[in-house]
Amino acid sequence: MRIHARCPSCLLNRVYQECRYITDDEDLIGRIMERAMEIVLEEYRKKGVNAVSATRVHREVYRMLGTHDPYADVKKIANEQAMNALPVARKYIENGDRFRNAVIASIIGNSFDYGVLGHEVNDGEFELYFEREFKRGLAIDDTDEIRHLAKGNVVYLADNAGEIILDRLLVEEIKRLGGFVSFVVRGKPVLSDATMEDARIAGISEVADEILTNGKGAIGIIEEELPEDTKERLENADLIISKGMANYECLSEGDYSNVAFLLKAKCEPVAGDVGVKVGDMVAMLR
Amino acid sequence: MRIHARCPSCLLNRVYQECRYITDDEDLIGRIMERAMEIVLEEYRKKGVNAVSATRVHREVYRMLGTHDPYADVKKIANEQAMNALPVARKYIENGDRFRNAVIASIIGNSFDYGVLGHEVNDGEFELYFEREFKRGLAIDDTDEIRHLAKGNVVYLADNAGEIILDRLLVEEIKRLGGFVSFVVRGKPVLSDATMEDARIAGISEVADEILTNGKGAIGIIEEELPEDTKERLENADLIISKGMANYECLSEGDYSNVAFLLKAKCEPVAGDVGVKVGDMVAMLR
Repeated sequence: MRIHARCPSCLLNRVYQECRYITDDEDLIGRIMERAMEIVLEEYRKKGVNAVSATRVHREVYRMLGTHDPYADVKKIANEQAMNALPVARKYIENGDRFRNAVIASIIGNSFDYGVLGHEVNDGEFELYFEREFKRGLAIDDTDEIRHLAKGNVVYLADNAGEIILDRLLVEEIKRLGGFVSFVVRGKPVLSDATMEDARIAGISEVADEILTNGKGAIGIIEEELPEDTKERLENADLIISKGMANYECLSEGDYSNVAFLLKAKCEPVAGDVGVKVGDMVAMLR
Repeated sequence: MRIHARCPSCLLNRVYQECRYITDDEDLIGRIMERAMEIVLEEYRKKGVNAVSATRVHREVYRMLGTHDPYADVKKIANEQAMNALPVARKYIENGDRFRNAVIASIIGNSFDYGVLGHEVNDGEFELYFEREFKRGLAIDDTDEIRHLAKGNVVYLADNAGEIILDRLLVEEIKRLGGFVSFVVRGKPVLSDATMEDARIAGISEVADEILTNGKGAIGIIEEELPEDTKERLENADLIISKGMANYECLSEGDYSNVAFLLKAKCEPVAGDVGVKVGDMVAMLR
């Protein structure tokens, strides 16, 4: 999907927040906001993919801030909260349809996304939030078709830290079905997205067959930045599991087939493009 | 106060919302957002007063939308809610220090401000909200000094529709003290701000000595746009009552003295400039 009229204010809001995470230097923040607006305006005129535009903006902001990871503390908290919710999630998965329940759990994990305008991350009470969301269920449910494809070569595109802890549970279920799982994280820290370090914390190497990266840490997938092995796995996948909104923005524009979009629609443009309401959870095969 | 790094995303967010109030034409909204970003970037570079920059942006947006009042429905609801809360407000004012209580009531009314990022207008349950806020009281309280000056020539700069219903109660108290009240509304509809029509609904002419306007309906006060009589009253005022954030942004930069800023600090930049927390209510004489 292409950048939406709603995106610029949301993007600038997030830029401001990430500045505040690491500095109180008002002059620096002022210069960064001006530069961010220039880039957002340029990108908005191009009408490209928002996640790609956002990648360009945040890279420039990180450079001007002189930091490689303004979300380090935020990610730490998200991982801890998800870890605390793990026993509850396991209990839910073990009752009934394990695969579908693991899909839902991993989508609930997609709620760990800091900085989407109007989307509140449930700090502190993630276990209660998990139970409420689980009962709510999926607005689009292609789980049966996804399950069928999950027996083959699966590329799992992760999204956020915190979320990755619950992704592990879905990888376990894919392995039960006999799938080969290539798990892909961001190649460098960007926003609150999961990296190799988060994969280590989540113990992904104990369950997935391999862990790859998206190269330079784009927010989502930028073809030109993909390492050869990641590109090869994507081209030969029987199923691509695409977590979250940024991966959706990128892959909904690409040529890949058999993509299972697992996400919580946290903003109006993505919800509108998918055809659901803001807040809805979807497991949609395309 | 000058435009803050936080302002652009908030301003663009409001522009998007006001587009949605009156159209679903995605192409038009897309063009408007691009033009709004261009102006916001230009204005941000000038480092002027945010309310003045916002005035320029919204005027262009209204022109492109082909509307003179996208907030008409919103204002109608605000006036109705405030009207419903009037008996409760009167009860509070009659118990104890009438003038101080009327000041607080009018500041609670300043909560009727649609579109400030992160500020939620309490739809539906304004009476409950009123009681809670009243108990909370003022973070800065110069009411005694303000009361003293209110016996002379008072210029009352109104802010929002809805709010103006409660402003009437404070005007009544100023009249009790013997003041001469020149009540100033926006000369044209802009955002959810009060105009002559809202003054009529609130019955301001029954209590104030005269009703004037700010000319062309700037968000706040733009000197060059003021009608002669309004300018003269401001210059000869013993007390200027300045309601809300936009009037604060404008008058905190001007040469006027004896200005009583009555506002709820609904965003970080204004709260920071005033020296209070977001959500605090202040009655501050400068």
